[in-house]
Amino acid sequence: MSIVHSRKQSSLLEHPAIYTDFYELTMAQGYFLAGRKDERACFDYFFRDLPFDGGYVVFAGLSDLIAVLDDFRFHEDELDYLSEQGFREEFLRYLRDFRLNIDVMAPREGEVVFPYSPILRVEGSIIETQLLETLILNILNFESLIATKASRMKYAAGERKVIDFGLRRAQGYGGIQASKAAIIGGADATSNTYSSFVHGTPASGTMAHSWIQSFEDELTSFRKYAEFYPDSCILLVDTYSTLESGVPNAITVAKEMEEKGHRLKGIRLDSGDLAYFARKARKQLDDAGLEYVKIAASNQLDERLIKSLISQHAPIDLFGVGTRLVTGYETPALDGVYKLAAINDEPKLKISENVEKTTLPGRKKVVRYRENNGRFHGDGIFLADNDDSTIIRHPFYPAKYTDITSFEAESLLHPVMKNGDLQVDLPSPSKSARYARERLEKLNPEHKRFENPHIYKVGLSEKLLHLRNRLTEKMK
Amino acid sequence: MSIVHSRKQSSLLEHPAIYTDFYELTMAQGYFLAGRKDERACFDYFFRDLPFDGGYVVFAGLSDLIAVLDDFRFHEDELDYLSEQGFREEFLRYLRDFRLNIDVMAPREGEVVFPYSPILRVEGSIIETQLLETLILNILNFESLIATKASRMKYAAGERKVIDFGLRRAQGYGGIQASKAAIIGGADATSNTYSSFVHGTPASGTMAHSWIQSFEDELTSFRKYAEFYPDSCILLVDTYSTLESGVPNAITVAKEMEEKGHRLKGIRLDSGDLAYFARKARKQLDDAGLEYVKIAASNQLDERLIKSLISQHAPIDLFGVGTRLVTGYETPALDGVYKLAAINDEPKLKISENVEKTTLPGRKKVVRYRENNGRFHGDGIFLADNDDSTIIRHPFYPAKYTDITSFEAESLLHPVMKNGDLQVDLPSPSKSARYARERLEKLNPEHKRFENPHIYKVGLSEKLLHLRNRLTEKMK
Repeated sequence: MSIVHSRKQSSLLEHPAIYTDFYELTMAQGYFLAGRKDERACFDYFFRDLPFDGGYVVFAGLSDLIAVLDDFRFHEDELDYLSEQGFREEFLRYLRDFRLNIDVMAPREGEVVFPYSPILRVEGSIIETQLLETLILNILNFESLIATKASRMKYAAGERKVIDFGLRRAQGYGGIQASKAAIIGGADATSNTYSSFVHGTPASGTMAHSWIQSFEDELTSFRKYAEFYPDSCILLVDTYSTLESGVPNAITVAKEMEEKGHRLKGIRLDSGDLAYFARKARKQLDDAGLEYVKIAASNQLDERLIKSLISQHAPIDLFGVGTRLVTGYETPALDGVYKLAAINDEPKLKISENVEKTTLPGRKKVVRYRENNGRFHGDGIFLADNDDSTIIRHPFYPAKYTDITSFEAESLLHPVMKNGDLQVDLPSPSKSARYARERLEKLNPEHKRFENPHIYKVGLSEKLLHLRNRLTEKMK
Repeated sequence: MSIVHSRKQSSLLEHPAIYTDFYELTMAQGYFLAGRKDERACFDYFFRDLPFDGGYVVFAGLSDLIAVLDDFRFHEDELDYLSEQGFREEFLRYLRDFRLNIDVMAPREGEVVFPYSPILRVEGSIIETQLLETLILNILNFESLIATKASRMKYAAGERKVIDFGLRRAQGYGGIQASKAAIIGGADATSNTYSSFVHGTPASGTMAHSWIQSFEDELTSFRKYAEFYPDSCILLVDTYSTLESGVPNAITVAKEMEEKGHRLKGIRLDSGDLAYFARKARKQLDDAGLEYVKIAASNQLDERLIKSLISQHAPIDLFGVGTRLVTGYETPALDGVYKLAAINDEPKLKISENVEKTTLPGRKKVVRYRENNGRFHGDGIFLADNDDSTIIRHPFYPAKYTDITSFEAESLLHPVMKNGDLQVDLPSPSKSARYARERLEKLNPEHKRFENPHIYKVGLSEKLLHLRNRLTEKMK
């Protein structure tokens, strides 16, 4: 297991410009034919529901998104396809020379974010901002979902290691992003070699049951593995009988390794009652003087099972997590949306029967307030320009408010693209992971617990609230 | 919406050889260093649990898998990476010249398959069969999951259309495979332009709320869209008020279209009580003499909601399905596994405390039996060679058996690769979709219902059962 530099920051997507819902293209042609191609639009990316019944989201996917945006253009074969789909020659000529000229504001990758708050703000022509909707949603929704799940597993595991083993049950090629997002969220390493190669994240893994079965007996299979991997050997002990065969054979091999000046790194449990087997195995190892041999456990683990195992004092040093990490499992999608906030600097809102689905109009910014101890107190959503509100109010119960004048404040959204030019270096997964860790430390524990986490305060500036109310009235 | 030929059957994966769990590589090097590289192994791909509490799985992913296998080799940059990870020079030299020489047997893509039955049989050197494990599981598990989900939605929808709108909430780039698998399983079209381009599947989509919001009023936005898309115009009617504004404006535009010799194709409902709004909208349209205008509905739909809407006689002609299709939602992963069945022609099995997890030893084949009416009666798993059993027995309750001599029989597994050479043309999604439809028609309805579907019979030949019992005894 070692870290290498990322080989390829560009995207897997060979055809990013058509990685989109078909209607983005029909609408784009519509704007073009309506003579509106140079009109300006501002869209917000945000989500409404927290995944996993949790209290926060770890923002991820920014680096993959930027890599795609940096390379966004229509190629001839794509234009031929669009022509076959009935798009008009004049529009295809426009697309042939199309280059992004957008402004993008976003938090740093790894930021802790909350419902309703704009995460990405995208400004540009009505065509370019519309065309990017699906791409932005697809990448940010998924990577943020998995980074969040990983952060919960790491939170449960504490100082113990969490390793991503999920590729075999990941949702197809999304597995490459899942393993990267898992690292951003807090996983220590991944079994996903592709992701390790492309993203420079640490790779990990030793043996499957088939290795053991392919030898005449378990002891021989262990001996062979220890011979080839004297310094990174983790033996899988549950192929035949964990306590009667697997652990005793591992002890035999560990003793033989000691004679050659090596140390068995660990054993892995992959079935049965992990708390029971870990305790029994630990005792067998300790009785043999092998206190240094670690115990790894895997098998349908998630943050709640990890927490349960730790609360039972199961002596497990490393958790291998798979399906329940890389698919999000109980919440397999973040519900992020991309909504129009302004056209030609005129604020727009979409009303809904459900007041919580009414959007926030206008170009906006997000400010985070800190308590004296540095912890996050809450976030305020402001109009981007000339908003000097000193009070933020609850979005739906405006009688609840906070005076923010006494708090230390920081802006959450930073320039990522300006006129289509990148304003930042692409963050590496390890850098984003470090940032996520720092930020999660500043989030109070009541927002991180798994059962009924406390709701983090996100308020609207008085000025934004007035604008929303005024536009809502006008539409009625 | 039109169908074009697929432009690119090769895989998205630029680095298929390292699209694998790290331990496949450490084991491969282990076999190499142990001097076992030319030993032969046979692995089975199968699953144990049916997704969605359903009665069957639609097998998909074969064409993507074959495309990857056909292009499988280690490139210099990958070997450099592996060298940095500590792999030895002699093994890397071996990998540099590594080419697949495997035999693969599989059902046709779109086949209806069941638990415990081998789906893929992979034979080759112990190294090549081991290296492919993760790749096979990742692609087949996911695409089969989504094809199965799509087939359930189409089953609920009957003659009505089902369109995949899921890309924005798909699990990252897995969305490309999801949209293809959805077509194989029965979706009529997709909003996913990338997938349509790469796979030649029909694309579909018209407008989002932002189109309407960007104009000064709804009527103007509808008129403009109808002007540009006179023959494929589906108007989204819920931006302001479905029944007081959206449908009346759609009717106005439809009448104007009639004057110019065109017809409004449809309206789309995307919020609220879809049964209620569909009925009210249908009446408004019909009262205006617009019986030909279709009603499309979307918003968190799945097969149960589609069934419910139809049982309420909601006059919906087209269902747009998203997140709950492309992620599998309540079952976000198929639990397929890849297990060793033989080494050097010697059958192997893995026993487990849980009898249902004990594997089936040896090279095997699968036979499907048909009733007189052509419907599927059940499947039998046999040893591939010299197995003339005339009785198949329940895998865990052998007193339950079927005499199969009177049934019409067909082999399910066909050669896909022989000595690493492709034996079949890559099936197009439309071809696999046609096959899935044919095969699902032969599956009795009691296996297709959503509540407590009847368990499809899968038996073991007497000879296979004896082998399993003999090896189990021997291991104890």
